[in-house]
Amino acid sequence: MLRFAERTRGAKRSAIRELLKYTEQPEVISFAGGLPDPATFPLEFLARVAQEEILHNAVKSLQYTTTEGKRPLREALSRWLAEEGIHATMDQIVITNGAQQGLDLVGRVFLDPGDAVFVSLPDYLGALQAFRAYQPTLVGVPLEEDGMDLEFLRKAIREARRAGHTPKLIYTVPDFQNPTGIAWSEEKRRELLEIARAEDLLVVEDIPYRWLRYRGEPLPTLASLDEEGRVLVLLTFSKILAAGLRVGALVGPQDVVHMVVTLKQGADLCGASLTQRLVVRFLTEYDLKSHFAFLCRHYRAKLEAMLAALERYMPAEARWTRPEGGLFVWATLPEGVDTARMLERALAHKVAYVPGQPFFADGSGANTLRLSFALASPEEIEEGIRRLGTVVKEEIAALSLAQRS
Amino acid sequence: MLRFAERTRGAKRSAIRELLKYTEQPEVISFAGGLPDPATFPLEFLARVAQEEILHNAVKSLQYTTTEGKRPLREALSRWLAEEGIHATMDQIVITNGAQQGLDLVGRVFLDPGDAVFVSLPDYLGALQAFRAYQPTLVGVPLEEDGMDLEFLRKAIREARRAGHTPKLIYTVPDFQNPTGIAWSEEKRRELLEIARAEDLLVVEDIPYRWLRYRGEPLPTLASLDEEGRVLVLLTFSKILAAGLRVGALVGPQDVVHMVVTLKQGADLCGASLTQRLVVRFLTEYDLKSHFAFLCRHYRAKLEAMLAALERYMPAEARWTRPEGGLFVWATLPEGVDTARMLERALAHKVAYVPGQPFFADGSGANTLRLSFALASPEEIEEGIRRLGTVVKEEIAALSLAQRS
Repeated sequence: MLRFAERTRGAKRSAIRELLKYTEQPEVISFAGGLPDPATFPLEFLARVAQEEILHNAVKSLQYTTTEGKRPLREALSRWLAEEGIHATMDQIVITNGAQQGLDLVGRVFLDPGDAVFVSLPDYLGALQAFRAYQPTLVGVPLEEDGMDLEFLRKAIREARRAGHTPKLIYTVPDFQNPTGIAWSEEKRRELLEIARAEDLLVVEDIPYRWLRYRGEPLPTLASLDEEGRVLVLLTFSKILAAGLRVGALVGPQDVVHMVVTLKQGADLCGASLTQRLVVRFLTEYDLKSHFAFLCRHYRAKLEAMLAALERYMPAEARWTRPEGGLFVWATLPEGVDTARMLERALAHKVAYVPGQPFFADGSGANTLRLSFALASPEEIEEGIRRLGTVVKEEIAALSLAQRS
Repeated sequence: MLRFAERTRGAKRSAIRELLKYTEQPEVISFAGGLPDPATFPLEFLARVAQEEILHNAVKSLQYTTTEGKRPLREALSRWLAEEGIHATMDQIVITNGAQQGLDLVGRVFLDPGDAVFVSLPDYLGALQAFRAYQPTLVGVPLEEDGMDLEFLRKAIREARRAGHTPKLIYTVPDFQNPTGIAWSEEKRRELLEIARAEDLLVVEDIPYRWLRYRGEPLPTLASLDEEGRVLVLLTFSKILAAGLRVGALVGPQDVVHMVVTLKQGADLCGASLTQRLVVRFLTEYDLKSHFAFLCRHYRAKLEAMLAALERYMPAEARWTRPEGGLFVWATLPEGVDTARMLERALAHKVAYVPGQPFFADGSGANTLRLSFALASPEEIEEGIRRLGTVVKEEIAALSLAQRS
């Protein structure tokens, strides 16, 4: 009885979210979560404006709002994004329940079953999940130190077409991607847009970590380089204000935004007025420059602690990324190591991470892992990576023993 | 370029939401919106707990939460629902972004293209929109004064099966339905469950107005009468606390809730922690009995003003419902009157309503209209219905003139 729809067949929960339960034991130093540090949330400001909004602006803060989101929020976003070279009018912006709802709405508006979607190997798990609900063919493209392998991408598009799939969109997090921390070079950003133009594809540019750059100069967003209106931008205030507000936005050509709003009506009618009003106040009253500088100082110390500790404690066989921003470092262990299996050993040593395989659309990457440096203190990071170094060395030793026998 | 998915073909925006723009002119007395009265929101309480939660409980109120929603909220809901005879453990509850997201998730989990979904004529527009995204066949069943015409429903199920559709679910708002205000009799509630059992169908029971009963005794929820786990309950705090929080819930059998949570991960990861915390505090600290009694007194006066004014000012040819709760009265004018066309005349007379046709899955109902009494004062209601009476009389006169010529 009560038969589920066909689309539920392949549906599975995020292995990561399930794993997190086991990493929350006391004394475990966890690099597993993808959460921002609550110590960065501007509590005094949010408490004051929440109280003001509820007491003195209830019709705006506690009544339903429009499906596209509050007008002052879209206006403030329009002004703010212009600083990133993203020129979008209010009508080109729809407020979403975090960037995750933006991903779902992209799938809803654009994906027919069997359409080809190009993602990185590895890529943000939430994007893979969101797209999978619309039954596309996910095509994985290897990620290099400066962005996707674009030769591979070109070939993959041609092959998808030959196999009868409709290449529809390329998904990318060009600034400090989750899970790798990698940022795309400007050359690759430009080349990606050329490919999208030549092949008539949509580009989805997800920029949750863009304002968390700790070294080097910002690179142009894909949207700022786009002259044709084929880039959709997804952003969120989860990492730069507070994750529990669930306020994000989708920014793009007006006809696309119009269709997104049409389908969002059925999906959830509108977002929460209260949290949208808090973000309006943040964008228009808070000192954003100082706040972002504070965030960058805060996380830079943690990133540097992690990179120094990796250098000190990891065996020669391990490799890892050296991000200039974001919340994650990505490690690759020798072939044959299974980081999902190794997690048990890690928990015995009171350290946790996320095994990398779920981030690979093609099911590869069993020897990889993601380390978040956002929540632990620099001292805990040093100690946690020391423990992890021991774990990795033990695992490699056990592996070569097993291979010899 | 940028081809939309097949499912966008039939997508259209709510005619009502588009119409509302024109009803917001000054001096117009509007019965059009479906909004609760902000005068009923407990501002002092919400302002105080919002401040407390942000300042002293930031890790719970401003960090990500779980996809299924905050544990204390699901616990509090479980206790509260038991008073309605709905016995659900924490694991049978998922928090949604209003009841609207619950509707979308029901569609996502259960509907394949072509499945038959049975709705009332007329029915809640948001439900029709949510289900349509999954391309089912919507089958309209006439609504009588005490609930659906169940003989018609039996036949419609058989006919759908004969036509090759899979009858999947029956959607209903048994307490003071939007748009009609009608409540189902206990007999029909029981009979509906029998039909669902005999035909192996899911029942979706949407109860946003259940706590807004102004006369008579509460009738049992479908869920409380259900012995087989085939009723899913959707609820929301939009009408009984504050609409701008967007906190609702889906309650049902554990395997269904498990699948809903799995698909919700991809849809929006999780709801807003802050607004969920406010509802936890409301359920555990506020005097709910007094609050609901206050809501009922507040709205009862408006409903009575509207029914008295309709009696006084509407022509003999008009009929309307006499609800015992909710926020809406539903009027039916003589055949041939087109209430969408009549709206122009109404706006000229500075009164607004919602034309009824969009609420009909089969496109009928051109001579019907919905009146919300939630926002206007009793004095405004009297004056607005006086104006509407004039409009209706003029329209009927113009119609019979046109028919004679």
